Amino acid sequence: MALKKKPAPKKTEVYFSEKKSVEVVQKRSGPKANKRVKFLVDSLVKHMHAFIKETEPTLDEWMAGIQFLTKTGHLSNDWRQEFILLSDTLGISMLVETINNRKTTGETESTVLGPFHVSNAPRYPNGANICLDGKGEPLLVSGTVHNVKAKPIAGATLDVWQTNEDGFYDVQQKGIQPDNNLRGVFTADEKGRFNFKSAYPRFYPIPYDGTVGDMLKALDRNPNRPAHIHFIVSAPGYKPVTTHLFTPDCPWLKEDAVFGVKESLIADFKNKGDHWEVEWDFVLSKA
Amino acid sequence: MALKKKPAPKKTEVYFSEKKSVEVVQKRSGPKANKRVKFLVDSLVKHMHAFIKETEPTLDEWMAGIQFLTKTGHLSNDWRQEFILLSDTLGISMLVETINNRKTTGETESTVLGPFHVSNAPRYPNGANICLDGKGEPLLVSGTVHNVKAKPIAGATLDVWQTNEDGFYDVQQKGIQPDNNLRGVFTADEKGRFNFKSAYPRFYPIPYDGTVGDMLKALDRNPNRPAHIHFIVSAPGYKPVTTHLFTPDCPWLKEDAVFGVKESLIADFKNKGDHWEVEWDFVLSKA
Repeated sequence: MALKKKPAPKKTEVYFSEKKSVEVVQKRSGPKANKRVKFLVDSLVKHMHAFIKETEPTLDEWMAGIQFLTKTGHLSNDWRQEFILLSDTLGISMLVETINNRKTTGETESTVLGPFHVSNAPRYPNGANICLDGKGEPLLVSGTVHNVKAKPIAGATLDVWQTNEDGFYDVQQKGIQPDNNLRGVFTADEKGRFNFKSAYPRFYPIPYDGTVGDMLKALDRNPNRPAHIHFIVSAPGYKPVTTHLFTPDCPWLKEDAVFGVKESLIADFKNKGDHWEVEWDFVLSKA
Repeated sequence: MALKKKPAPKKTEVYFSEKKSVEVVQKRSGPKANKRVKFLVDSLVKHMHAFIKETEPTLDEWMAGIQFLTKTGHLSNDWRQEFILLSDTLGISMLVETINNRKTTGETESTVLGPFHVSNAPRYPNGANICLDGKGEPLLVSGTVHNVKAKPIAGATLDVWQTNEDGFYDVQQKGIQPDNNLRGVFTADEKGRFNFKSAYPRFYPIPYDGTVGDMLKALDRNPNRPAHIHFIVSAPGYKPVTTHLFTPDCPWLKEDAVFGVKESLIADFKNKGDHWEVEWDFVLSKA
């Protein structure tokens, strides 16, 4: 009978090494670690170490990265969120949004939230005009909220926001625009119908004077978002949808700085001479 | 002769999709992009999208990530750098440091800079005592700076810093510790010799009351760094080295919260009854 060899004792990696960097960091967690946090951080460590090993940044580049992130934090406050902008411009927001809302049964597709939603916009009755500064071409938006079997959803909530004719959200121009300009919450009637007055949306550059602007300049990327109106449509028992309506004629439609355009979200805005009209149905799926 | 099929026209990916997310973002850069920035950001996009696809974070988790980064920025100021701490605790700092200083010819190994170096520490003559608060056990540090062929480097600069007996750097306790406590810059003499007085170093937790502390708690990780003295040793014509001296008896030597320990940096601190002594040579390689 052949002598069985004892397996060689497994060498415990205690100290850090370039080769074993991922394992050394991941093994440091204790038995009481939150399992989900550990899963997320372990994966982040694996992919970030792969990024470092692929690019081999210099120490000066590492420090530039630290300073970029620090400045991005300092630029973020109650009305500006530079980290959301960074996530948006790297396609990360759109990827997370898409993964969490894989379309299955004909419901309205989702897109990025963006950094300019506020959670306490005024409630209006149907028919109200949210364009408080009177700028831009008048627009009438109307439609129905229904489920995937075309059954109207009475009482659905529509949270709406967009920039003014100058390309800024109200929260970017406190004291210049009226508070809550082009922002409001509507309720669909018993037939799921809604309508409100606004202004024809226009394209605009995302805030371009911070770290994200510096990055886009260095990458020779345009900062523009194609013209759109934001919506969050929700109703009890249904999955809420965060989405946009895009105008069909915008020159930046195929180059959205935050990758938010989906073909199904491009609407037919009709020119009625002295105003525009768009009719649009939102389709929600069961929660 | 068989009819040759025309190849199907390549579909241009214009709009974002989960499958093509990396390519869609990378293709957006223009012809005037800075090549190095594009290389770094394209790689970051590839690895971050892989992280998102592997973990599929919820929208709430994405928002928690945005808020974590924002708070990390807000915690960072002139004397606290929470993003360096984050980079340190994820093993990223040590990886970048190691990649940039692959040991080749016997020079002193490098380790992390950490967030507590200041660039304008006072200059002292050899023999000075940097322990201004009188706490801890006295320590005499001496040695030679030489090149890889054992030739002394006259006039080499040694930038030194460490915590006090309570485990804090001076900049963490403004108004409590004397300014520039346990911090100083020395110059090697014509024989490359240096010596200074200090206090026996002790282990300490990294700042634990911010976002990095929250992360370590969620991962059930200890926040301690083993006892050490920081050095940056430099001389004209030589590659500077950012390094530590570790004491050999520290209980946290194998669990450094920032992965900074290398076996070659553990020194022989000698107990002389009423004080400690350590003799250590720094070896620099040509720039």
